Amino acid sequence: MANAEAGRPAQNEDFAEKQRENLPGHLLRLGADAPLRLDCGVDLAPVTVAYMTYGTLNADKSNAILVCHALTGDQFAASTHPVTGKPGWWSEIIGPGKPIDTDRFFVICSNVIGGCMGTTGPLDSNPATGKPYGLEFPVITIRDMVRTQVRLLDSLGIGKLFCVIGGSMGAMQVLQWAAEYPDRVHAAIPIAGAARHTAQNIAFHEVGRQAIMADPAWRGGNYLLEGSKPSAGLSVARMAAHITYLSEAALHRKFGRNLQDRQAITFGFDADFQVESYLRHQGITFVDRFDANAYLYITRAMDYFDMAAEHGGVLAEAFRGTDVRFCLISFSSDWLFPTSESRVVVHALNAIAANVSFVEIESDKGHDAFLLHEPEFFNVLEGFIRGNEERIGLSGAAAGGS
Amino acid sequence: MANAEAGRPAQNEDFAEKQRENLPGHLLRLGADAPLRLDCGVDLAPVTVAYMTYGTLNADKSNAILVCHALTGDQFAASTHPVTGKPGWWSEIIGPGKPIDTDRFFVICSNVIGGCMGTTGPLDSNPATGKPYGLEFPVITIRDMVRTQVRLLDSLGIGKLFCVIGGSMGAMQVLQWAAEYPDRVHAAIPIAGAARHTAQNIAFHEVGRQAIMADPAWRGGNYLLEGSKPSAGLSVARMAAHITYLSEAALHRKFGRNLQDRQAITFGFDADFQVESYLRHQGITFVDRFDANAYLYITRAMDYFDMAAEHGGVLAEAFRGTDVRFCLISFSSDWLFPTSESRVVVHALNAIAANVSFVEIESDKGHDAFLLHEPEFFNVLEGFIRGNEERIGLSGAAAGGS
Repeated sequence: MANAEAGRPAQNEDFAEKQRENLPGHLLRLGADAPLRLDCGVDLAPVTVAYMTYGTLNADKSNAILVCHALTGDQFAASTHPVTGKPGWWSEIIGPGKPIDTDRFFVICSNVIGGCMGTTGPLDSNPATGKPYGLEFPVITIRDMVRTQVRLLDSLGIGKLFCVIGGSMGAMQVLQWAAEYPDRVHAAIPIAGAARHTAQNIAFHEVGRQAIMADPAWRGGNYLLEGSKPSAGLSVARMAAHITYLSEAALHRKFGRNLQDRQAITFGFDADFQVESYLRHQGITFVDRFDANAYLYITRAMDYFDMAAEHGGVLAEAFRGTDVRFCLISFSSDWLFPTSESRVVVHALNAIAANVSFVEIESDKGHDAFLLHEPEFFNVLEGFIRGNEERIGLSGAAAGGS
Repeated sequence: MANAEAGRPAQNEDFAEKQRENLPGHLLRLGADAPLRLDCGVDLAPVTVAYMTYGTLNADKSNAILVCHALTGDQFAASTHPVTGKPGWWSEIIGPGKPIDTDRFFVICSNVIGGCMGTTGPLDSNPATGKPYGLEFPVITIRDMVRTQVRLLDSLGIGKLFCVIGGSMGAMQVLQWAAEYPDRVHAAIPIAGAARHTAQNIAFHEVGRQAIMADPAWRGGNYLLEGSKPSAGLSVARMAAHITYLSEAALHRKFGRNLQDRQAITFGFDADFQVESYLRHQGITFVDRFDANAYLYITRAMDYFDMAAEHGGVLAEAFRGTDVRFCLISFSSDWLFPTSESRVVVHALNAIAANVSFVEIESDKGHDAFLLHEPEFFNVLEGFIRGNEERIGLSGAAAGGS
């Protein structure tokens, strides 16, 4: 091959491929003959999709639940994270006997396109140059994430999902699934989500991106090639974002004005307060598991999300005629994706007489409540899933497949 | 002088002194014989206080109003800013015939200690080294700001203020004035304030500080000496903070998801959205008028503010026996200093039967409402000031002094 002769790194020198060698789970490879047509007009190829599955697919492939992850989530929803060693981000929700019961359901969770945990993203090598994409990676959208998941389901021979579920950016994907592939979804559970990203949320994302881009180690996005790492910028971005995931009440309950390992303020710029120490820790540990360019791309995808805009400004049009059964869930203290944003979706669904239930969970934990121990939330999930399972006569079906 | 012979820069080579040469207004010079005893235990000297006055002090010096500025404010409350050329930040409130009527009152506004508009701060030369203080400047507190203002009033021969007023960090100073110098204050108007900085607010400040410190041009605080400027870090800090000054409703009304000079999204990282462009502008212009180290010091002073903690955890004790007449004002959409924080102060004042009135102004403009055109707010100010003027028989007194 001409390129190899000219010294182009072999495939196993590729940064993303090296990472994949150590990732638990599965890889779907889409070759140059099956490019992914993106919203920006680019035909992306090759594409790898990294995913995890939990539970067993039944004989008629009717018990599949697709779990969509949030901005900094990944496919390790219910298994140990390979970098941090921590339990999966939804390990309280997915598992045997849990609200998403892996004794009854086959759960799929894939890393989003543009991500950094094995699915093709800016860490990958650009086949046109043999160098990491960096900012040459095409800007992706929520719809592109869903398109990638559709390809994954096709490869698994799953025609119709029993359920698609996700929180935050995951909820955006759920809504996109329901709007664009209504025949492939029985039930949809968008949690702590919205049908569009608000001005305030775009603003917070922009701060994070500017923090990353202001870090000289970012090198215009070419840090991989230049051997640097924009940890400081990414850490600041994470700190700013993390505040928005919590409520004032949660911060107050957790930390208040408590001091960190000291009896009195030190009249300096060390982390006197526990909340400072906690935030710094959040920033520092995040950079070990996340890629700065991926953060840029995924935040951008969220900013661009606006379902009504794609339907002449009328959100209801996105869902007209749908048979999907919706359960929207919000949390009372979530100010990033407040209940009012879920209500906008509920009103749109009501306007077309869709089958929709809506629950606002009382919680003081803010946006992150969807990742935390919230028994009422778990009960709602379990009830809605059970109800739909009975409705389509799925109960007990999984046993045959295992 | 030995130092001069050794090549130490002459006084007029001093960065802060150079800046002072071009500042409108007045300077109070406190020499080495009159140091300022700070909360951290340092005796700071020399100290310069840069201040503006508007209106005329009457014969018995009873018509003085002290205006306390916020985090990024300065003494140019009612006059053109020397750097930006913009009108003073309270030019709608202070002036002839305005709520703070300079035909009747003598208005004083000084730059806070630790600031960067002429009052001694980290830009100044450390007399011990002849070099800019940078992080060798002592950490200051809200009480230190008030102490500095007391020295200014002493120098002007003003025994008792007719009123002390301020918003946000200015409100913290107002509360400190009332608590510590009740005999020197007739009326106190803390606006959009709190008696302590919350965990969430400390968290946002910490993000800003980390953004500044992550900028390699910050050079451990020695950027003046090393000829660099941490503009990128300070700009990110300002962007993050600026979001907290606005409400979601204000951002939505002002920008929504409107695009900036384009018909469609560009699938890139330019400022596609108006809110991004606006935020970037806020960041970029801020660095022209503000010093990064001063930002660190002043945010820290706010973080440390906790009046109850200084009184055995009982806020009311800070004000016991006071004759000060209070008017607290909050804004309904302010989530940085929400109404609940003002209520905490009102409850404490009620508990000691203080003279207190409290108004929550309906506004969707967020924390920044105290700087914006809010007619109801102006009416409340004017009414409270008129009432107190009549009560102490001040009306018409100013005429004799002009």
